[in-house]
Amino acid sequence: VGWLSARALSGIPEVRAGDDVAALILRALGGDPPGEDEVVSIAHTIISKAEGAVVSLDQVSAGERALELGALQGRDPRVIQVVLDQSQEILRAQNGVLISRTHHGFVCANAGVDASNAAGPGTLVLLPRDPDASARRIRARLRGLSPSPPAAGGSGAGPGGEVPGHGGPAVMVTDTFGRAWRHGQTDIAIGLAGMAPLDDWRGRTDAEGLELRATWLAVADAAAGAADLAREKDSREPVVVIGGLQRFITDEDGPGALALLRPLDEDLFR
Amino acid sequence: VGWLSARALSGIPEVRAGDDVAALILRALGGDPPGEDEVVSIAHTIISKAEGAVVSLDQVSAGERALELGALQGRDPRVIQVVLDQSQEILRAQNGVLISRTHHGFVCANAGVDASNAAGPGTLVLLPRDPDASARRIRARLRGLSPSPPAAGGSGAGPGGEVPGHGGPAVMVTDTFGRAWRHGQTDIAIGLAGMAPLDDWRGRTDAEGLELRATWLAVADAAAGAADLAREKDSREPVVVIGGLQRFITDEDGPGALALLRPLDEDLFR
Repeated sequence: VGWLSARALSGIPEVRAGDDVAALILRALGGDPPGEDEVVSIAHTIISKAEGAVVSLDQVSAGERALELGALQGRDPRVIQVVLDQSQEILRAQNGVLISRTHHGFVCANAGVDASNAAGPGTLVLLPRDPDASARRIRARLRGLSPSPPAAGGSGAGPGGEVPGHGGPAVMVTDTFGRAWRHGQTDIAIGLAGMAPLDDWRGRTDAEGLELRATWLAVADAAAGAADLAREKDSREPVVVIGGLQRFITDEDGPGALALLRPLDEDLFR
Repeated sequence: VGWLSARALSGIPEVRAGDDVAALILRALGGDPPGEDEVVSIAHTIISKAEGAVVSLDQVSAGERALELGALQGRDPRVIQVVLDQSQEILRAQNGVLISRTHHGFVCANAGVDASNAAGPGTLVLLPRDPDASARRIRARLRGLSPSPPAAGGSGAGPGGEVPGHGGPAVMVTDTFGRAWRHGQTDIAIGLAGMAPLDDWRGRTDAEGLELRATWLAVADAAAGAADLAREKDSREPVVVIGGLQRFITDEDGPGALALLRPLDEDLFR
């Protein structure tokens, strides 16, 4: 019988540029590292802050298009400029929202640019430049910081205490995205290391000749949503540890969350 | 510290028209009813079958438009006809898929029409006619079938063993939907009783004048995704019991999953 569990970590402090996110997570876990069968889900905001992916509005000057859109939407044109800078394309500018395709390829409101509660007034937090790389880096670091398990069956620990074939926990980086036809937002995976982003049953169904709907499950996105439910929004718990997803965890870092992007030439709603 | 848990139930048999879904769930739980603080998530397929929302292809004759679309997409025109019958609007007919707005207002592939593995060859399973009503009915039935807890504080059990103020568990009806700009599908809530579909923080943020992104969480959709992760796809576990969402559970049945639909006049991607 299947199961899923998720627990939010308390004790992650305000993160500043240069902070070691993996070390903060380990400390919040009381030094007891997450298991190889667990997924560590991290709200991107703390990674963006650690990586310095923030912009101070007083260093932004709005160009012509930002001034125009700002006037149209009644919004600070410098904020619009930051959104434009993070976008390869604006799909819609309506109802006070910019729907953007980011440089990564994510389609979301305002290119994922967020006001920061704590980084100070006038500070915007961007998406990490390469969230899959962030996930891989944090995964490697969690693995490096974790005490190595006792060597078994003659396979000794490698240099740095790493055990061959021990991939460590999967690491997921999340953000909160809206949906085209539904109210509200859900968390989805924007970065991923050590977990299959999709569970592909398309070839495995019995062929009745009647298969109408693809069976290709975006398990990483569902896991990101589950992680968000484990925290109360005001409790500042950016890190959630998920159990029960062993079957999707891989030794290899794998294709990352970019594999979840529908390519432009399959986009029916551009 | 927040948490979430989900467990799939084994032992739900193949469901046929007229079956009592609530009774099947209680039996799978060994007679131990779900708690008032739990959400019972049910894949719509078993509800559709119980309600007789199935169509046999040999009773369908394809009209002109279905013949045309069937030829265009290389698909059985009778299947297309059933999809058209379930739709108020076809948004896109491309890449071998019909993106439909169903009569309920859901935007999804093929109007939610699915081939049935078990209902026999040539049988299609539709969405329930009113999934919120299905959820309310199953919730009431679960409550009625559950042994009443011992009366406390002088408030006696009402007629039929119901306890005033005892709403029973929340009940959610789910389906698997694709997303416009992301690969793969996730489960979402198409029916709901006794749970807030959305968690609205929009008025509750501290006003820095910089709020860029709405904070309006589609908690029911995230919960549906979490439930799907608790089952393995081939294990036929249509029912999942979720814990940790007490803060969203209500005595009243509430607005249901229809509150998750973005109204037509706010649709930027019609």
